[in-house]
Amino acid sequence: MKTVLLTGFEPFGGDSINPSWEVVRQYQYRRIDTADVVVCQLPCVFGRSAEVLNEAIDRYRPSLVLALGLAGGRQRISVERVAINVDDARIADNSQRQPIDRPVISGGPAAYFATVPIKAMVNAMLGAGIPAEVSQSAGTFVCNHVMYALLHRLAHMSGAARGGFIHLPYLPQQAAVLANAPSMARETMEAGLEIAIQTALTVEEDLHIAGGAVS
Amino acid sequence: MKTVLLTGFEPFGGDSINPSWEVVRQYQYRRIDTADVVVCQLPCVFGRSAEVLNEAIDRYRPSLVLALGLAGGRQRISVERVAINVDDARIADNSQRQPIDRPVISGGPAAYFATVPIKAMVNAMLGAGIPAEVSQSAGTFVCNHVMYALLHRLAHMSGAARGGFIHLPYLPQQAAVLANAPSMARETMEAGLEIAIQTALTVEEDLHIAGGAVS
Amino acid sequence: MKTVLLTGFEPFGGDSINPSWEVVRQYQYRRIDTADVVVCQLPCVFGRSAEVLNEAIDRYRPSLVLALGLAGGRQRISVERVAINVDDARIADNSQRQPIDRPVISGGPAAYFATVPIKAMVNAMLGAGIPAEVSQSAGTFVCNHVMYALLHRLAHMSGAARGGFIHLPYLPQQAAVLANAPSMARETMEAGLEIAIQTALTVEEDLHIAGGAVS
Amino acid sequence: MKTVLLTGFEPFGGDSINPSWEVVRQYQYRRIDTADVVVCQLPCVFGRSAEVLNEAIDRYRPSLVLALGLAGGRQRISVERVAINVDDARIADNSQRQPIDRPVISGGPAAYFATVPIKAMVNAMLGAGIPAEVSQSAGTFVCNHVMYALLHRLAHMSGAARGGFIHLPYLPQQAAVLANAPSMARETMEAGLEIAIQTALTVEEDLHIAGGAVS
Repeated sequence: MKTVLLTGFEPFGGDSINPSWEVVRQYQYRRIDTADVVVCQLPCVFGRSAEVLNEAIDRYRPSLVLALGLAGGRQRISVERVAINVDDARIADNSQRQPIDRPVISGGPAAYFATVPIKAMVNAMLGAGIPAEVSQSAGTFVCNHVMYALLHRLAHMSGAARGGFIHLPYLPQQAAVLANAPSMARETMEAGLEIAIQTALTVEEDLHIAGGAVS
Repeated sequence: MKTVLLTGFEPFGGDSINPSWEVVRQYQYRRIDTADVVVCQLPCVFGRSAEVLNEAIDRYRPSLVLALGLAGGRQRISVERVAINVDDARIADNSQRQPIDRPVISGGPAAYFATVPIKAMVNAMLGAGIPAEVSQSAGTFVCNHVMYALLHRLAHMSGAARGGFIHLPYLPQQAAVLANAPSMARETMEAGLEIAIQTALTVEEDLHIAGGAVS
Repeated sequence: MKTVLLTGFEPFGGDSINPSWEVVRQYQYRRIDTADVVVCQLPCVFGRSAEVLNEAIDRYRPSLVLALGLAGGRQRISVERVAINVDDARIADNSQRQPIDRPVISGGPAAYFATVPIKAMVNAMLGAGIPAEVSQSAGTFVCNHVMYALLHRLAHMSGAARGGFIHLPYLPQQAAVLANAPSMARETMEAGLEIAIQTALTVEEDLHIAGGAVS
Repeated sequence: MKTVLLTGFEPFGGDSINPSWEVVRQYQYRRIDTADVVVCQLPCVFGRSAEVLNEAIDRYRPSLVLALGLAGGRQRISVERVAINVDDARIADNSQRQPIDRPVISGGPAAYFATVPIKAMVNAMLGAGIPAEVSQSAGTFVCNHVMYALLHRLAHMSGAARGGFIHLPYLPQQAAVLANAPSMARETMEAGLEIAIQTALTVEEDLHIAGGAVS
């Protein structure tokens, strides 16, 4: 029996909800194809978020880990291509820490690429009418931190567990109180996530289609 | 018994669906509070759209008319403030006509203001967590044409029927195939429209809150 | 001898400069073709701005008046098509007044269209490689207020003076301190304004080209 | 005597000019502080661009290399933080090649960080009123390819030559013919580049200020 671990973040930056957790917690106790889904909420804190993630990996020994986070201002579900080895926080995390230009993991490689089939995941969501895209940057805040820590961990584990990171837009109720931001309904995000999980579970070799950015 | 007339447009500009009609047709035969809702699809054609609208007004004698259309690229439900007396088409309508700087109605006033309580409608949607805004321009294409024709007609009718125009974002399945566009789920639009109708039916005096644009 | 009156605004909303005045004051004592240019700074105050404008019109009896203002967030020089008879201020003006849904001129028409050849002006700027566009809304703040007051005045004057309004982007030094805003160099704006003035002085009949917006 | 090598690209994607070359070629034979500036145009071709760059490095033995490119759609001068080891072309390069998910350099590390003081460069430009920003992604096209190849080369050279990449917005004459794009005057870009070069020549330790992105 395969296990899929989904993580979402607690709210941060003054928000009272975080779409990543609102979506991920719908999946508790679900099965997708033949896999059991387990979910885990991560604190929006440098360091501690990676520890909680690693504890969940130890407990569940998942064969697929998808971490999710909020990318306020984006209008599509973004499947991240790469995590870089830098923490550079424009705003404080939930422990009031704001690291600047510090490595996620000292001595780690400059970056890790997602090991899930990002093109196939995006393509499958688009085929179902769900706005999705490959993203070339997960930022330098706690989302990138968790993605880097996840891929570092999986690279040093035996087995062939795959890992990736998905950024979600604001929920409509968040965008309603902002001056200018696109949003996406929770139902659309949930449908997209289900397709992304199924694709990551079943597609071995990623699609050979463009998903890059000119700049 | 009050009657509410909702109109939506047929697809245009190469699209196969139009969110305004997808949303409006859900309301066929519904009642909202004590009002009966009737719906009507308008052709995306200068002139003919206004004729079909006027026929529907003659048939149903509504006390509230809300016309809806697509504003591809916007991220919120937009309640329009004003319609101007000009047709200026960047793209051809569905009859391949492309008027430039022609009046909607010769000899008509330069503009008409919506007679529904636009601030209250936006405020009620925001209060329900639905991204909405007052818009200062309905463009110069068939949407503005229909809004102008509607308000001109109501201004010359006996009775106190109110009229307004609401622009909707793309649906997710439309945005999925575009390079860069925000979208909104049909369910979110439907919930917003219901609130807008209830508000237009019940709020006599519009709210005294800012809804303008600096530029 | 023809006289061209250019107006720009004092800074507002916390800014220390206003690109409209920075550009307009470069034109003091210039001649363009056979016309003398005079300039005038307007206060960013509802009511008083229109009074100062009217005093300048009385003094100079111009045959062309172009009022300029800042449209923070736009990336092109915008030639406005229409002014509407409403003041609706999201922020306070420089006298701390914030009118909501009040007419610019009680009993005035719902809107006035610019009487300068807006399409020809935009087309000439584009031909010179300067980003420009027709805009369908001048907002509902002091810019729209001044444009409406100008066109109302000219409509009630003998003679054939033409009037219009041009919105400018932020200057680079303004955008540098903002989170996210496009800008335009003062030199580019000045070059655009000169072309706009020349066009407004010489083109009688506006071009029959599309300049509208679908929404 | 120090030598600074600046590179710009030939036009691509149907454009007839490229702002990176328009700006860089102004610097031919200039001195900045005590450094000689040399310039080099790179073809917009995967592989060949890196070869031409490496030939220029061999010829001039620069102590600072800044490669510049166009980032159509951005509104600020972007100093890139990181180059990743992937070519993924949404459009064909000038040799009609369109690699997908291929490494820039087989066996190379996943990414390289710029070795110029990116925060100090951005900060100095902002202080001079020039819109600038740190960017977390140079894309996956020829710009990222050249940045990666440059940093790979410098990492394997003796000496302490520094390298970085700067993305420029469209020029006004490019934006004028596009539907919707911000632009920047060549003069503003040139002034920014001079400040960036001076900073990279004189600031040893980068500033400890935030320049990251939440997502």
